[in-house]
Amino acid sequence: MKVGILGGGQLARMIALAGYPLDVEFIVLDPSDHAGATGLAEHLQGDYTDKALLAELAKKADVVTYEFENVPAEVAAFLAEHTRVYPAPNALSVSQDRLHEKEFFHQLNIPTAHYATIGSLEDLRQAMEHIKYPAILKSRRMGYDGKGQVFLKSEGQLAEAWDAVERVDCVVEGFVDFQREVSIIAARRANGEIAFYPLSENIHEKGILRVAECCVGDKLQQQAESYVVKLLDALDYVGVVALELFDVDGSFVANEFAPRVHNSGHWTIEGAETSQFENHLRAILNLPLGSTKARGYTGMVNFIGGLPTIESVLNIPNAHYHLYAKSPRKGRKVAHATVRADSKEEYSKSLQKLIELAKSTDDS
Amino acid sequence: MKVGILGGGQLARMIALAGYPLDVEFIVLDPSDHAGATGLAEHLQGDYTDKALLAELAKKADVVTYEFENVPAEVAAFLAEHTRVYPAPNALSVSQDRLHEKEFFHQLNIPTAHYATIGSLEDLRQAMEHIKYPAILKSRRMGYDGKGQVFLKSEGQLAEAWDAVERVDCVVEGFVDFQREVSIIAARRANGEIAFYPLSENIHEKGILRVAECCVGDKLQQQAESYVVKLLDALDYVGVVALELFDVDGSFVANEFAPRVHNSGHWTIEGAETSQFENHLRAILNLPLGSTKARGYTGMVNFIGGLPTIESVLNIPNAHYHLYAKSPRKGRKVAHATVRADSKEEYSKSLQKLIELAKSTDDS
Repeated sequence: MKVGILGGGQLARMIALAGYPLDVEFIVLDPSDHAGATGLAEHLQGDYTDKALLAELAKKADVVTYEFENVPAEVAAFLAEHTRVYPAPNALSVSQDRLHEKEFFHQLNIPTAHYATIGSLEDLRQAMEHIKYPAILKSRRMGYDGKGQVFLKSEGQLAEAWDAVERVDCVVEGFVDFQREVSIIAARRANGEIAFYPLSENIHEKGILRVAECCVGDKLQQQAESYVVKLLDALDYVGVVALELFDVDGSFVANEFAPRVHNSGHWTIEGAETSQFENHLRAILNLPLGSTKARGYTGMVNFIGGLPTIESVLNIPNAHYHLYAKSPRKGRKVAHATVRADSKEEYSKSLQKLIELAKSTDDS
Repeated sequence: MKVGILGGGQLARMIALAGYPLDVEFIVLDPSDHAGATGLAEHLQGDYTDKALLAELAKKADVVTYEFENVPAEVAAFLAEHTRVYPAPNALSVSQDRLHEKEFFHQLNIPTAHYATIGSLEDLRQAMEHIKYPAILKSRRMGYDGKGQVFLKSEGQLAEAWDAVERVDCVVEGFVDFQREVSIIAARRANGEIAFYPLSENIHEKGILRVAECCVGDKLQQQAESYVVKLLDALDYVGVVALELFDVDGSFVANEFAPRVHNSGHWTIEGAETSQFENHLRAILNLPLGSTKARGYTGMVNFIGGLPTIESVLNIPNAHYHLYAKSPRKGRKVAHATVRADSKEEYSKSLQKLIELAKSTDDS
């Protein structure tokens, strides 16, 4: 079996590492000359919209998936004409447009922040008569890691904010005053079988995920599952999905979803019985899903912009280092480490050390 | 960092998979055109004694290791002149000759079966006046998976046995009437740091390993560690070693050792905090060794000669399938599956299912 991946970065790298034991081979399409999956996959170097390369990818791969959601609609459609594409283009088209995503949540009765669609400064002024400050103005498309977002505190800021987002189509949404940010990762096969991971609690700084901790036995697990199952079934989804949620006084408000393996699920490599990467492959290859049970206490720390020495990570008990073979650059995710332990105390001690290490090398 | 491996089969494959997260790259020398590590490593195709290829391997790799112990002495010596070779050639030269191995155990006060060196039928007749039947005649060199061995039940068999081993240099050893076969896997760094895995209990059939189960808290763990530490220190060993032992009424008798990652340690991929493959790399790259603690109950089943369908393995709860990308052939190890669970009952149930699956597809 050969799986094609649009994008050859760290997510493709980790998908490939999970696939080799199942004798899956890989081919990636990526514009860079040395991507994270280089060495693990046949590499088609070129633009994501290059029809000849897309045709080659579709021809060589039994199924095509992607490691980012901003795949142009016409690319997904082209691929889907020539081979199986999972998750299917409908999931992409919803998730890559914040307005469609919000409307989709709304249709499914999944709570969201108050929002309005914005096409002009006048729209923004009118919307903010109904939505309370603070609020966030977000471009409808191409947002990730906090890019294309402006925090709105007062009316005086609106014109400047509209310029800052370069006057592109936006949504504005009321700021959710949450107690914590979590995500739920789930995998769905074409036959409707679904596997849910335990919730991740996520800590962001400067809009970038820093720490994700697995929450076994969380009292809101069922609520999260009930939302993600609606989303998966409505899209007839195949693959792994990540749904980001805000916990507001014990009830969830949906933020956004990513139709792919997700940074907040990296702890599953060592911390779950089956990793999100392996379950994504099992789902898109129509194989039985693996157990998503956590193995003890587990979490993950990202390294942004800078890398600690390999010794400093491996010296931390139960730490597992995952380098992406990328050169450090300001704000770039270059590695993560997971920690897994049988006791909460051991786990917390090692996680704390990893967090300190990440701070000491951070360049974000 | 780039690691060179002599041999590109399943052990090289699993070493490479363990190395990518640490940003280690690989180059293998292997005569076959499609080896298990193909796709994961640069592949030098050719004979293990090809000096030009060995020189290229030595030049490109920061350190060279191997996945089998029958590396010709002159090859190991040639490589050691040009780069670091771990484990060092002395470990190879001892382990690849059953007589040297037995003498080495003897010097270290590690108990072995009674044995004698055999260079002729006359030697064999004389030796068997002192060694009790049953006994085993084994060629000194190139033995693995029970090849080059004849089981001796009575004097009348000796001439035939001597012909069967093709009259090569042999040792004869008294049959050890053991209660169980175990192995201990350990890793040693150049600075003397050693990490021991929990014992494996191993079940062989037709001379081939079938099942290995991790024995947490075994009452003979300390005795096994005391033997393997002597061996490691005496050889100033760097890397992973496997020492095979017979349990005779609660005392160990050494059988043999393998200067490499070992089939009886494959359960460590999912079943230990750090796999034998990763710890082998950490040892030879002079990095801190990882925890060898077992994660719950865990074991491994080999698939010999035939392969069950991927679905039939993945349908077994907590089973993890490891395919070697080799075509099935009589007697050939083509895959294994590990199982790991938090409860003994869950573990035993899944292990039993894997054993039945292996029997139903066995061609050994």
